[in-house]
Amino acid sequence: MHFSFEIIGYLAATLTTASFLPQAFKTIKTRDTQSLSLGMYSMFALGVLLWLIYGVYLSNNAIIIANAITFLLASLILGFKMYNMWRNKDGG
Amino acid sequence: MHFSFEIIGYLAATLTTASFLPQAFKTIKTRDTQSLSLGMYSMFALGVLLWLIYGVYLSNNAIIIANAITFLLASLILGFKMYNMWRNKDGG
Repeated sequence: MHFSFEIIGYLAATLTTASFLPQAFKTIKTRDTQSLSLGMYSMFALGVLLWLIYGVYLSNNAIIIANAITFLLASLILGFKMYNMWRNKDGG
Repeated sequence: MHFSFEIIGYLAATLTTASFLPQAFKTIKTRDTQSLSLGMYSMFALGVLLWLIYGVYLSNNAIIIANAITFLLASLILGFKMYNMWRNKDGG
């Protein structure tokens, strides 16, 4: 029972981390960021960075790796959003 | 030292959870979902639901509450995305 429920945790972590991959691919491919929220990606990227720091404090590799990947993907998407707003290709 | 680092964890959890609020508000206000990834919100909503189940298994209220809120917000955004695709207002 313990083992099977640990799998739920790993599956949850894998899904929430990997979910930013299709968004990053879509954003890179289309360069369209109009319906993405600047507030969301700003808060999310900062939050994930803090998770990463917290993982380093706990010396927990699962937290470190998952949040390092998510931070890179969320920052990439945030970068496209800010670039498009700066170039006036996105009204915000 | 211990106490101050626990605050980092709480701040991280608050930011990553609350970050979906501005996205949900933007999506409700504009009804625009074109640049949102269907794959991301499908995987993310399922992942957060599994986190919620895992939190119930651990009897950890912080995991339960954070993921219940995020699940509601992510499902709402996913609902708008699927509705727009079904109505052909969103090419996917």
